[in-house]
Amino acid sequence: MNHPDLPPIRDPQLKLEALTHRSYCNEHPGTPSYDRLEFLGDAVLGFVVGRILFERYPHFTEAELTRLRSQLVNQNQLAYLARFLDIAPEIRLSQSLAREDGQSSPSILSDVFESLLGAALLDGGLPAVENFIAELFVPILEQWEKSQDGRSPKPVPTMDVKSMLQQWSLAKTKQLPEYELIDASGPPHAREFTFTVKVTGKIHGQGSGPSKQIATKQAALEALKGLGLLQ
Amino acid sequence: MNHPDLPPIRDPQLKLEALTHRSYCNEHPGTPSYDRLEFLGDAVLGFVVGRILFERYPHFTEAELTRLRSQLVNQNQLAYLARFLDIAPEIRLSQSLAREDGQSSPSILSDVFESLLGAALLDGGLPAVENFIAELFVPILEQWEKSQDGRSPKPVPTMDVKSMLQQWSLAKTKQLPEYELIDASGPPHAREFTFTVKVTGKIHGQGSGPSKQIATKQAALEALKGLGLLQ
Repeated sequence: MNHPDLPPIRDPQLKLEALTHRSYCNEHPGTPSYDRLEFLGDAVLGFVVGRILFERYPHFTEAELTRLRSQLVNQNQLAYLARFLDIAPEIRLSQSLAREDGQSSPSILSDVFESLLGAALLDGGLPAVENFIAELFVPILEQWEKSQDGRSPKPVPTMDVKSMLQQWSLAKTKQLPEYELIDASGPPHAREFTFTVKVTGKIHGQGSGPSKQIATKQAALEALKGLGLLQ
Repeated sequence: MNHPDLPPIRDPQLKLEALTHRSYCNEHPGTPSYDRLEFLGDAVLGFVVGRILFERYPHFTEAELTRLRSQLVNQNQLAYLARFLDIAPEIRLSQSLAREDGQSSPSILSDVFESLLGAALLDGGLPAVENFIAELFVPILEQWEKSQDGRSPKPVPTMDVKSMLQQWSLAKTKQLPEYELIDASGPPHAREFTFTVKVTGKIHGQGSGPSKQIATKQAALEALKGLGLLQ
């Protein structure tokens, strides 16, 4: 996927409001916080993702649609998307919260992701917001669909760490991450595998575990932490 | 307010799906139930009501907007609107559930209200659904605004029984209900008031209580029950 930009918010005051945490307002009385815009953004996000899922999965039950949506719009997923869009440096916090690295809080990142959607809705209307949401969420769904083996009757999507790293790598470098087995030791009943993961040839993480799957996941996890995409 | 019709759903299959409870599908295998459409309708309702509140109450906090919306789109309110729109006779249920008067269940009425919104969205697009939702909910908000005394800092709307009867009466007859004091008895510290309520001159209910407010509410409650608008 291409790295989607934030939807353009032409009104600078509106964009600033969407990026302003209430702690900043305590230090700057009269400044509006992002909370109202977050309410609006949450509403439009739930609707747009719901409509995408309804149309994309005509054979899913209501329960499956509900579960799928809750996994797509939960705090961790939205915080991940906010990191992916590099929103954090623009968030306005109180001085003390900024010192505590409040910009990295999943709760604040997820809130700001929604408040920016609310501001974009006011600024540019629903179609622009729908396109933006689809650009972000359809690739996640495509990856999830590929991961299905067609046997499990109740698919449960997760944005796992390897998918997250792949999405980041494709967006930033247009190349896939490469996992390399660098060690396999121990007796057959207690093997230990070690993998590195490279992006454009550079090692970003290393992980070990009793299966190749676990070891590569550990490597991806370390890479994401090193990139600041996970805590 | 004028009595809003259901939004027109031109596709008869879609409308039938929106009116079909899953118990009916057990008896008629292969028939789709309203559940998926309810998912879609719930999503569009939350968004549209959220946007109405956001625009109508620019000074409300996120918490106030959230609470107001939850009081507008809860099961009782939606079931009331479904009764108001006279949806119940069209709902398709299993024979046993129909015998148990399942059409009157607030849960089923509220579900069908949402599934019809979902079908209308698919059939006619968002603007038609937005108009329909605004026609229903803005009068409720207008009544609620009038009931505020401007002193309570955190307004809490309720669709009380007198407002419900007034909305029904205006829609059906274009006249307001009339409350008439027919008796006041008892000593000053234990008065008992009795009121009747008339719509176009016909008595629809009677109620008694220790204050005029309680007695008129009781009368409205009896009228709504007699009209089948409340259980």
